[in-house]
Amino acid sequence: MLESFRAIVPAGGAGTRLWPLSRAGSPKFLHDLTGTGRTLLQATVDRLEPLTGPGGVVVVTGERHAAAVAAQLDLPGPAILTEPSPRDSMAAIGLAAAVLAEREGDVVVGSFAADHVISGAGFAEAVAQAVAAARAGYVTTVGIRASGPSTAFGYVRSGAPLGVAGAPDARHVAGFTEKPDAGTAAAYLATGEYSWNAGMFVARAEVLLGHLARLHPALHDGLRTIAAAWDTDARGAVLERVWPGLVRIAIDHAIAEPVAAEGGVAVVPASFTWDDVGDFASLATLLPEAPGGARVLGDADRVLTLDAPGATVVPGGERLVAVLGIPDAVVVETPDALLVTTRDRAQDVKAMVDAVRERLPDLL
Amino acid sequence: MLESFRAIVPAGGAGTRLWPLSRAGSPKFLHDLTGTGRTLLQATVDRLEPLTGPGGVVVVTGERHAAAVAAQLDLPGPAILTEPSPRDSMAAIGLAAAVLAEREGDVVVGSFAADHVISGAGFAEAVAQAVAAARAGYVTTVGIRASGPSTAFGYVRSGAPLGVAGAPDARHVAGFTEKPDAGTAAAYLATGEYSWNAGMFVARAEVLLGHLARLHPALHDGLRTIAAAWDTDARGAVLERVWPGLVRIAIDHAIAEPVAAEGGVAVVPASFTWDDVGDFASLATLLPEAPGGARVLGDADRVLTLDAPGATVVPGGERLVAVLGIPDAVVVETPDALLVTTRDRAQDVKAMVDAVRERLPDLL
Repeated sequence: MLESFRAIVPAGGAGTRLWPLSRAGSPKFLHDLTGTGRTLLQATVDRLEPLTGPGGVVVVTGERHAAAVAAQLDLPGPAILTEPSPRDSMAAIGLAAAVLAEREGDVVVGSFAADHVISGAGFAEAVAQAVAAARAGYVTTVGIRASGPSTAFGYVRSGAPLGVAGAPDARHVAGFTEKPDAGTAAAYLATGEYSWNAGMFVARAEVLLGHLARLHPALHDGLRTIAAAWDTDARGAVLERVWPGLVRIAIDHAIAEPVAAEGGVAVVPASFTWDDVGDFASLATLLPEAPGGARVLGDADRVLTLDAPGATVVPGGERLVAVLGIPDAVVVETPDALLVTTRDRAQDVKAMVDAVRERLPDLL
Repeated sequence: MLESFRAIVPAGGAGTRLWPLSRAGSPKFLHDLTGTGRTLLQATVDRLEPLTGPGGVVVVTGERHAAAVAAQLDLPGPAILTEPSPRDSMAAIGLAAAVLAEREGDVVVGSFAADHVISGAGFAEAVAQAVAAARAGYVTTVGIRASGPSTAFGYVRSGAPLGVAGAPDARHVAGFTEKPDAGTAAAYLATGEYSWNAGMFVARAEVLLGHLARLHPALHDGLRTIAAAWDTDARGAVLERVWPGLVRIAIDHAIAEPVAAEGGVAVVPASFTWDDVGDFASLATLLPEAPGGARVLGDADRVLTLDAPGATVVPGGERLVAVLGIPDAVVVETPDALLVTTRDRAQDVKAMVDAVRERLPDLL
């Protein structure tokens, strides 16, 4: 357990590329995508609670999913913050930080997405170092050791050692990058200075809100106003008045990038395995290999593959799924939609979702 | 209508390569595979009845399918001959010929499989010429004009003109071949002498049975004994005693090939389109093209394809089937099994069926 550390879990995002498994009405964080028996949201909270201690995790989610989130988690009501409408990650994380500051003073807060998969050792150690760097005043991120030149993630570039007690591996952040092309990604890795940006940010609540006050004062003031009213009878009225006017911006653009340019961001290297499960190609690598080489999320006894190494199947459970002669096939069954594609085309599931939106919007 | 012409429709064969659509318990002739609203069996009888006149079609099928056959057809009971067990095509066709000879004397009989698809004009004209050649004493087949060097069919080679009145296009058969390899098939086509063997045989009942008596006397005698008892109370007892001992042999080997070698077989060219719907690649070519280029057997509104030209989909009807990025994909949904493959691998569905037999025999 880390002293005065609180975790913020933004639970949003539809996981469009995981359609038809993930839906607007049932986004990926509500699903058990790894066959462990726990949903991504549950696994995220399971991972954080030992670090914050009981009652130290706050989930921020939309009205549409608040009931499902509450049903999946054994958290007290005040630990679930419900946004009236989506306002991107800065508003979500800023709201939670402001509410925590109001309730508990200048605690260290760390934000961790509800729909990522983490395995292997080293998470607690990395967060502990990030908390130490945060106490020293830095906005601290966790850099994931890249297992290859991925073009699916943004990168964080490390600079000089930070030299903060309790964070021996922390370094200054020299900058953040958007998702690169393959050549650029390979060049990044060759330098040894780059790691994947998993969107984890750890900072003292007042440091985070102080940066926000300086860089986006209207957003800061709105969030503070809402936070002051959150645990009172006025919450509804204040939300209704203030929330719709908040600017939509990601925390990366609002704080991480400008503050990094000022030297205020640190990075702690992580040795654990991380994946954002952004598409079925990514999901495939997280599933155990069944006899015959298939990757199955569900009952492997309901799947038969022939000459289809790497086939990734999510059986609906009612019927046998037989895949013949399509290596890396992706077959996903749900009660109202069946998707058939390949890992190579996993990113293009978004285009299929666009086509579905036009023809059969009820299936999104 | 052709005078004294009777049609025999052997309705057997599981259509293994069309699994999971076609099953041992529900073989392909019982299915509407072309979306016309008529099953292959029904379409076969629809096509023949105008040539034989009412009551001129006899169907030979197995005990397992007799009820389904009767339910699909508006035929009198005696028109459906039920075999106690499968004994290959010579026994099936020979039984029907012997029963018809017993009932009606030396009529001309023609055998036409229950699970082939025929379209376009020319069927009646070809059968009329075949019947004329049959009256002159020939076993007459119908040669399908090859649309390409297929390796999926056997070929029939034409010889000199037959010179029989009423059959101006008939020729002697120089020989039959097994399914050739691609090079051989191309060489066949280049000669202009070869057409596809669709397994249609037309002959006078006594000519057919006479060849059988000469070439396979035990089989002939058994079938005659059964036929004599067929419309009497003794049918069951005679079948039970005689049927199990009948030799299993195809009519091609039993009669067509040896009689052709003796000069007793004729061929009539056909201009209609014919397909044996042997696998999903074959089925695909018979289906209309839906918007987007897919071939759909069923409700095309339940199918969405992207970058999948030629995709062939049999939707189960309950859900949307979305195919992304797999040209010529084959997706077949049934209540208890889903098959995903490609047209290229259509022949290998047999191997998948073998795997299913081992793991989940209930699904065959």
